[in-house]
Amino acid sequence: MATVEERLRDFGLTLPEATGPPPGVRISMRMARRSGNLLYLSGNGPLRDGQPAYRGKVGREVTLEEAYDAAKLTGLNLLGVIKAELGDLDRVAAFVKTLGFVNSAPGFTQQPQVLNGFADLIVDLYGEERGLHARSAVGMAALPFDIPVEIETIVEVAP
Amino acid sequence: MATVEERLRDFGLTLPEATGPPPGVRISMRMARRSGNLLYLSGNGPLRDGQPAYRGKVGREVTLEEAYDAAKLTGLNLLGVIKAELGDLDRVAAFVKTLGFVNSAPGFTQQPQVLNGFADLIVDLYGEERGLHARSAVGMAALPFDIPVEIETIVEVAP
Amino acid sequence: MATVEERLRDFGLTLPEATGPPPGVRISMRMARRSGNLLYLSGNGPLRDGQPAYRGKVGREVTLEEAYDAAKLTGLNLLGVIKAELGDLDRVAAFVKTLGFVNSAPGFTQQPQVLNGFADLIVDLYGEERGLHARSAVGMAALPFDIPVEIETIVEVAP
Repeated sequence: MATVEERLRDFGLTLPEATGPPPGVRISMRMARRSGNLLYLSGNGPLRDGQPAYRGKVGREVTLEEAYDAAKLTGLNLLGVIKAELGDLDRVAAFVKTLGFVNSAPGFTQQPQVLNGFADLIVDLYGEERGLHARSAVGMAALPFDIPVEIETIVEVAP
Repeated sequence: MATVEERLRDFGLTLPEATGPPPGVRISMRMARRSGNLLYLSGNGPLRDGQPAYRGKVGREVTLEEAYDAAKLTGLNLLGVIKAELGDLDRVAAFVKTLGFVNSAPGFTQQPQVLNGFADLIVDLYGEERGLHARSAVGMAALPFDIPVEIETIVEVAP
Repeated sequence: MATVEERLRDFGLTLPEATGPPPGVRISMRMARRSGNLLYLSGNGPLRDGQPAYRGKVGREVTLEEAYDAAKLTGLNLLGVIKAELGDLDRVAAFVKTLGFVNSAPGFTQQPQVLNGFADLIVDLYGEERGLHARSAVGMAALPFDIPVEIETIVEVAP
């Protein structure tokens, strides 16, 4: 059976390096913290090379389609953190719970469809059994660096 | 001692079927995911027969009293998910932690009083020892389907 | 090695009593709930003697510097809850995961810098190994009692 990294390559996707915040910003946190067999990942966003690849509110500066792509890019960044923490993406036994924050223009109510960009990527790579997870998707007044979406997740690590 | 389902009937309440999103909306998620003895429930809302029973912002289209009722209805939907996952509502050892999102009009600051609609239901059914839990209640710019409240929760499952 | 409470005194800081909501407000929740070796703390805010010490949106009524101080005060309140629950602040093995909600004026995007007020306090007291944690920082439309910041956290308790 293909590994998750092989499947990433099959989809033409590249795992980014785990990165910190944009230059000049001090953020007092870890990218992830493990407790028992759970790995808690910090909220991440659609950064590319340390800079936001998307900016603004979904339903105004950012379309639903772009926001879906931003959630997918955020997923790649979260996978980069998992790789840095666990060494191997296949050490994830299950994606447990995700909380997705969507920077929402007044009247925008399709937060779940934005978060599908993350969940579809994870299910493509891990399959439904390991990849499909519990989730909330909610609409924010603002997000750091004016990103359109921020996602945090909890994964279970294989023994 | 009465079971939780007996107490539900005593209060004249009915457990809804666990339902997915409104028709025509694809949501890539599970309603709940278990890890060890914790069951993580996805954000749920005041849906009835698959459609929002309340819509709009609390403090504008929705009164505090209606929002309290919406949080209670959301609780019934979450109990429906627990029943579907565990088979028996009495397999819950404890409600651990709830996060409540309130779709808030400018100036509305009574998010905790809205969430009491959920917590009071759970305490009525499970008692304080099992039912009273840690919680955050916060004010959102927007929620899916324009619902006034969305609630996620973590419960501990009895061995 | 100094205890956490000794270090608190060295910084000239005082642990507040664990307090409930402002008078006249009924909130149906626990300040914290333990499950296994994890202690889940309810969302707390910059209250002093049961009343908000700061009010309003960051970037409008509240400056970034004041919000940083409000996040630090919130941290002291959370430590007061931990003390009440565990009896000794040194029973915390690790701060695992924090979720920080910042009441944000339109255009305010420095939520992480606000939350540093909490994280810096915890790292000062516990050191990086125990204190530095995973985190999300997000911008809210509203918060209870119009406080500028609300923080919830999960800590791991030493065996």
